[in-house]
Amino acid sequence: MTNVVVLNGPNLGRLGTRQPDVYGTTTYESLVQSLHSWGEDRGMSVEVRQTDDEETLAMWLTEAARARVHVVLNAAAFTHYSRAVAEACAKVHASGVVLVEVHISNPHARERFRHTSVVSGVATGVISGFGTDSYRLALEAVAARTPQ
Amino acid sequence: MTNVVVLNGPNLGRLGTRQPDVYGTTTYESLVQSLHSWGEDRGMSVEVRQTDDEETLAMWLTEAARARVHVVLNAAAFTHYSRAVAEACAKVHASGVVLVEVHISNPHARERFRHTSVVSGVATGVISGFGTDSYRLALEAVAARTPQ
Amino acid sequence: MTNVVVLNGPNLGRLGTRQPDVYGTTTYESLVQSLHSWGEDRGMSVEVRQTDDEETLAMWLTEAARARVHVVLNAAAFTHYSRAVAEACAKVHASGVVLVEVHISNPHARERFRHTSVVSGVATGVISGFGTDSYRLALEAVAARTPQ
Amino acid sequence: MTNVVVLNGPNLGRLGTRQPDVYGTTTYESLVQSLHSWGEDRGMSVEVRQTDDEETLAMWLTEAARARVHVVLNAAAFTHYSRAVAEACAKVHASGVVLVEVHISNPHARERFRHTSVVSGVATGVISGFGTDSYRLALEAVAARTPQ
Amino acid sequence: MTNVVVLNGPNLGRLGTRQPDVYGTTTYESLVQSLHSWGEDRGMSVEVRQTDDEETLAMWLTEAARARVHVVLNAAAFTHYSRAVAEACAKVHASGVVLVEVHISNPHARERFRHTSVVSGVATGVISGFGTDSYRLALEAVAARTPQ
Amino acid sequence: MTNVVVLNGPNLGRLGTRQPDVYGTTTYESLVQSLHSWGEDRGMSVEVRQTDDEETLAMWLTEAARARVHVVLNAAAFTHYSRAVAEACAKVHASGVVLVEVHISNPHARERFRHTSVVSGVATGVISGFGTDSYRLALEAVAARTPQ
Amino acid sequence: MTNVVVLNGPNLGRLGTRQPDVYGTTTYESLVQSLHSWGEDRGMSVEVRQTDDEETLAMWLTEAARARVHVVLNAAAFTHYSRAVAEACAKVHASGVVLVEVHISNPHARERFRHTSVVSGVATGVISGFGTDSYRLALEAVAARTPQ
Amino acid sequence: MTNVVVLNGPNLGRLGTRQPDVYGTTTYESLVQSLHSWGEDRGMSVEVRQTDDEETLAMWLTEAARARVHVVLNAAAFTHYSRAVAEACAKVHASGVVLVEVHISNPHARERFRHTSVVSGVATGVISGFGTDSYRLALEAVAARTPQ
Amino acid sequence: MTNVVVLNGPNLGRLGTRQPDVYGTTTYESLVQSLHSWGEDRGMSVEVRQTDDEETLAMWLTEAARARVHVVLNAAAFTHYSRAVAEACAKVHASGVVLVEVHISNPHARERFRHTSVVSGVATGVISGFGTDSYRLALEAVAARTPQ
Amino acid sequence: MTNVVVLNGPNLGRLGTRQPDVYGTTTYESLVQSLHSWGEDRGMSVEVRQTDDEETLAMWLTEAARARVHVVLNAAAFTHYSRAVAEACAKVHASGVVLVEVHISNPHARERFRHTSVVSGVATGVISGFGTDSYRLALEAVAARTPQ
Amino acid sequence: MTNVVVLNGPNLGRLGTRQPDVYGTTTYESLVQSLHSWGEDRGMSVEVRQTDDEETLAMWLTEAARARVHVVLNAAAFTHYSRAVAEACAKVHASGVVLVEVHISNPHARERFRHTSVVSGVATGVISGFGTDSYRLALEAVAARTPQ
Amino acid sequence: MTNVVVLNGPNLGRLGTRQPDVYGTTTYESLVQSLHSWGEDRGMSVEVRQTDDEETLAMWLTEAARARVHVVLNAAAFTHYSRAVAEACAKVHASGVVLVEVHISNPHARERFRHTSVVSGVATGVISGFGTDSYRLALEAVAARTPQ
Repeated sequence: MTNVVVLNGPNLGRLGTRQPDVYGTTTYESLVQSLHSWGEDRGMSVEVRQTDDEETLAMWLTEAARARVHVVLNAAAFTHYSRAVAEACAKVHASGVVLVEVHISNPHARERFRHTSVVSGVATGVISGFGTDSYRLALEAVAARTPQ
Repeated sequence: MTNVVVLNGPNLGRLGTRQPDVYGTTTYESLVQSLHSWGEDRGMSVEVRQTDDEETLAMWLTEAARARVHVVLNAAAFTHYSRAVAEACAKVHASGVVLVEVHISNPHARERFRHTSVVSGVATGVISGFGTDSYRLALEAVAARTPQ
Repeated sequence: MTNVVVLNGPNLGRLGTRQPDVYGTTTYESLVQSLHSWGEDRGMSVEVRQTDDEETLAMWLTEAARARVHVVLNAAAFTHYSRAVAEACAKVHASGVVLVEVHISNPHARERFRHTSVVSGVATGVISGFGTDSYRLALEAVAARTPQ
Repeated sequence: MTNVVVLNGPNLGRLGTRQPDVYGTTTYESLVQSLHSWGEDRGMSVEVRQTDDEETLAMWLTEAARARVHVVLNAAAFTHYSRAVAEACAKVHASGVVLVEVHISNPHARERFRHTSVVSGVATGVISGFGTDSYRLALEAVAARTPQ
Repeated sequence: MTNVVVLNGPNLGRLGTRQPDVYGTTTYESLVQSLHSWGEDRGMSVEVRQTDDEETLAMWLTEAARARVHVVLNAAAFTHYSRAVAEACAKVHASGVVLVEVHISNPHARERFRHTSVVSGVATGVISGFGTDSYRLALEAVAARTPQ
Repeated sequence: MTNVVVLNGPNLGRLGTRQPDVYGTTTYESLVQSLHSWGEDRGMSVEVRQTDDEETLAMWLTEAARARVHVVLNAAAFTHYSRAVAEACAKVHASGVVLVEVHISNPHARERFRHTSVVSGVATGVISGFGTDSYRLALEAVAARTPQ
Repeated sequence: MTNVVVLNGPNLGRLGTRQPDVYGTTTYESLVQSLHSWGEDRGMSVEVRQTDDEETLAMWLTEAARARVHVVLNAAAFTHYSRAVAEACAKVHASGVVLVEVHISNPHARERFRHTSVVSGVATGVISGFGTDSYRLALEAVAARTPQ
Repeated sequence: MTNVVVLNGPNLGRLGTRQPDVYGTTTYESLVQSLHSWGEDRGMSVEVRQTDDEETLAMWLTEAARARVHVVLNAAAFTHYSRAVAEACAKVHASGVVLVEVHISNPHARERFRHTSVVSGVATGVISGFGTDSYRLALEAVAARTPQ
Repeated sequence: MTNVVVLNGPNLGRLGTRQPDVYGTTTYESLVQSLHSWGEDRGMSVEVRQTDDEETLAMWLTEAARARVHVVLNAAAFTHYSRAVAEACAKVHASGVVLVEVHISNPHARERFRHTSVVSGVATGVISGFGTDSYRLALEAVAARTPQ
Repeated sequence: MTNVVVLNGPNLGRLGTRQPDVYGTTTYESLVQSLHSWGEDRGMSVEVRQTDDEETLAMWLTEAARARVHVVLNAAAFTHYSRAVAEACAKVHASGVVLVEVHISNPHARERFRHTSVVSGVATGVISGFGTDSYRLALEAVAARTPQ
Repeated sequence: MTNVVVLNGPNLGRLGTRQPDVYGTTTYESLVQSLHSWGEDRGMSVEVRQTDDEETLAMWLTEAARARVHVVLNAAAFTHYSRAVAEACAKVHASGVVLVEVHISNPHARERFRHTSVVSGVATGVISGFGTDSYRLALEAVAARTPQ
Repeated sequence: MTNVVVLNGPNLGRLGTRQPDVYGTTTYESLVQSLHSWGEDRGMSVEVRQTDDEETLAMWLTEAARARVHVVLNAAAFTHYSRAVAEACAKVHASGVVLVEVHISNPHARERFRHTSVVSGVATGVISGFGTDSYRLALEAVAARTPQ
């Protein structure tokens, strides 16, 4: 059975109430439920976590690398500057599992600072701009690359 | 029934033989077949085209905008400089349909010039790095945003 | 009798339907008619062409240079990057005829990439921001510099 | 009756004697006469002013904004750095009248510092490179946008 | 008794009528009155001046430096490029009195060119974004640093 | 009654002992007392917090946004790079309350890296350079914008 | 027998008449004849083609890569921006044959934009500045690297 | 007796298993033992700590500054962007003790982003590229500058 | 007899009292006297003027160009940004007389913004760093190039 | 008889042993022999020199300029920064003889700093990337431009 | 027995008299003695050389590479621009011996141009900021990496 | 008696024959004679030297610093990049004598790379653009600052 951990960075716990014109009206709780359900559909074990803390996010990534668990990562604001998170991503990447960078909105259609990601270069791939559906596609991407 | 046109830019016709370590061994013909089959699974009408010509690619985008057909676009080398293609994408974007930018490889893990896309800012979203599976995810993304 | 060729680049064939808030509601056909009529008023022979193809646009410029026909050019998206079009403009410029760069909108009031023109440095002059009237003023400019 | 004020910045009072290979041999006095005559032809009231003073130029622009008089502006050297003049232009722009930026020479075919205009972004349009005829075209542009 | 001179740069004389969505509806006259009244409340002698002229503004700053009068400065457009004004500010700074840079709007939430101030580096401090209340806070700041 | 929370970033807990030539000799404890006393004078409820932790600071900002409490923020070193803190500020800004960025010293008179603030663009306004008095002015600014 | 294809980009068909001070007076037809004759001298089969079309140039490069034919390329204006041509060059390079970038003039002694080549990094070598003799040297270079 | 604290930033706890081709095969535990042993050899009291948390690292630095304990710092990924850590280093530097920046690998022989250190400017000195031996040399450097 | 006009820009009227560590203790009046006396020694007619006004400085330069009078110019703060002054200098330069740019201090040993001069490129030569003696050397330079 | 001097910069004396994967296995002595032999074939007198010294290289270039001897130059590391060598090249260029810049490897396919040549702009032409054969082609280029 | 050569670049021969506040009061002669003594302590044969000449320094590095002697290098001013020295360092690096870049002062705490080293990327490691003790640590680093 | 050494960098030995339109027709020998004669007129002992060698130039500067002899320096091409020469200049500067940077031509009216001087920041002053008379003015400048 394929194990996937979905890691969410700062502010994503407030999904649904924060800038709904940008991030949509789906709440974080509802997203978590969907992720579990999407995982079940694909015979995957999906764990979902959220933190606003850089260290915690980096630690979870490191754990995933060690346990060789696939990762779906929305690093939120850390995407643009946190080399600590990026280094942890590099460990995931090096461990041979899949690391999908996801974004709910399309960063390239927003402010200039969002056009730079320190994570993309060490991810397997990137999915952005499809609302919370970006997560479902990411699970789908993991599933396709982890034939059972 | 949802109509989607999959547009491929320069060199993609040579898929499978060109730099297989980067682009994989799936041939273009096989990709086309998969796209039709993936479309059928989702009840979508999928048309696939490829051109090495900037004008033709821009023209196809313009037609899609006029006909309000969803677009999955792999603009290949044009991604990085063709404002003519980008303007045509802007028309697709403005027409209200979905435009998914796809890449087989992950441009951010390659040479510096590939980190700039003049297309991303006017796309609905981006999917890159999952080999030819990026296309399947793109169809999935269109399907999810076009409930019937 | 003064001969002028009005050359239009990509997407201008869709004038009137594309982003009317930016480019106005005058259709391309109507613009062509106006150009002919404005030419007649000034005793000029005006030919109008449009292409989305970089090569064709460059070829028309080269022909104009050889035939020493004055040029009114709206290179559209090619304005910002096509050195091939710019080189062809340089030939027009070197042949001693007038080359007027026109724009319907004012590029400097729009996105940053539109602030750079590879054409302006080899044009006789630039007219931008007056809607389709930019073309009429360009004919006027040619007329003034080609006394009969 | 349409009112237009033609505002000229530093050094333009010396027209005809200064760098005639760049700016032509038409004197400033002769330009003023032509402007009045061109205005009469179009049923416009044209006032022409010149100053080498940044404050005076900004003040005239502000007055035009308040009086809702159309402006033809050759800001000369101020074009490239005077944010005070640019802010005054913004007021003209905001007042709903036409503001045409004109240049006798083509700045883009000259030194690099002339390629930047702090005025263009808040002008209605730009006309440059046609010698003193740039002014006549500017009046024509105003006339076309102010039907009576 | 503490003497303060409030110096206003270009366009501030038009306060209340110019872009009220940005600068508010308080008129310049009303601001002057408030400044006098705020000064009285604090036992300060407040003089208020406004000029659109770079030289005059620099001269007033030089006079303040010589007379060791505290300064509240809204250099408006000069903020972004006038080294002449900045040099005059440096003299105020060197004379040991307080120099407060104020802005009605928040320059950092506006166009990019407003993010650069050649004045800030030689000011005592900066207050921006509180409408005309920025001036009152500036008087307050001077008062606090000039105990009697 | 107006509620304000004063949030202090890394190192501010050491106020009074750290680089007193730059930050003054007022201790943090004394600043907290002053803030309470200044709040009382203005009929405001003032809460003061300090953390060296990026996540905690972002969390407090998020809470303030949710509770619609006004914020006085000295983000210290985070000012220059923490997009996580900036995103949290954006939520405060979007919630309609006042967010004042304060600095004890004048960052523009110090090292180059201090001239960039990722916070300013989403703050209501900025007050810097007046020592701990910057905080009092910030409370004053909040009071003025929250009439009772 | 060694096969070489000499590919010429935009405007080279006009050789001899265009800017003869820069490109010399040799006509394109005469260059073609020389190339055939130079090939014969070296026992090489030389084919010469010219196009102003980006797609056609890229296609010819792709064909050469597939057929493992050596290439002498003068990409003209495309040299400076066409990533589509550069990607096709990369295929030639990867196929193991020789790809010589040639220029008639010396780009580094001309305008700044000519100092950048997107082709050089994927060519075997570069020969520029020797007039049409650059082509003869390129054939010579190919001959030396393809011993029979 | 000289007191030294060795502070390690994110990911260093995983030493020995993470990218051994870059960081070597010595485990973190083994490094800690070596540090204690190296300290004993020099009559120094050496404490070793590791954290992935920016705040904790900054706090430890602050404590060292207050206690005037010498510091050997491997800030890992924080080296490249954490102004919060850099400010804490500045306090160490200002307190008069020795602060040695160490790196196991040579950052200048790796990716571009590693060439920038926000710490170096406020360190006593830098030692990088000698594997875990960099730490021993750092202790040696401290010993040499703290004669007993 | 050789005529020279010495033109001084903003703040130079305050010479002797302003930053004497940078600009020396010689007063402006004393400098004027010295200039007259130095001129007499060389049989030159020397006129000395000072203004803080950009327009006035540009006007004096224009007059010098027209009268073909040699110029010694200390443009002070205008040196770094005033294109209006630079254009007026270009006229002096074009008129065939000598234009010497002088500075009392050495701008290259001061703040970065002083390293850029928009005047130097259109001056005959530059003399800086010798205190008020820079002016005497400038007169000497003019004398040497204007043999009688 | 045509005289040519082949000048080699730093490290080229070690050819054949230094990075043979980049520079090939031909030794410097063997290259010298080949150059003499190639010269004889073309009826040229070829002298070959090598130095690691910037001054010596510049001196040899100056001598060649004075004696009007053609130059084949491989400036090696000096290519990228030595303005002294570049100035000496300019003298060769100005003397009317041919100056061919050669490189054994293709600098554009290597590290970024090798993409800049301070020599190219004052050379007749450039030949790079063909191993030591670059030298033979350079002799050939000289021969073709110096008909006897 | 381990052989080490300590190579010193320009101005280091004047150690002890030149800017003692930056470089300390130890004379060059005394440093040489210490180096010999430190070598003896470690059973190393240490040779020390100094030159102000770029070529000589590069030659010594080349010799060390050939003889496979370890190098301790203080390239002084050459550190920041000499690609000739850097290329010679690359040869040392490629030969498999240890190359330690040392600096007496900490370049990152000084002028901006000192923050760039063209040597670091091809060194084994860097030690800077510990006065002449940097050399002793470098010998120590060599010793540790060359077990006997 | 005041001692001055005039140091000339690369290519200045060829004065009079090299680019006479830029550097004039005065020969180096004639310049040396003039310098001696100018020295005598001022009661100065003037020694003149020229070298194309970076090390020699730096050595002469170092000697001057040690002997506290004033320096007139034309570093020619070294001006733009030689940090070794600049460091030697810094020693002259620090020794308290006068160091005048001279140029025969006006670097700011020539190519862009000549606008940067690594020497100016550590010179007493700069004199450029007056032909060989720049040297006479430099001696004059030294004389004025070394009263006897």
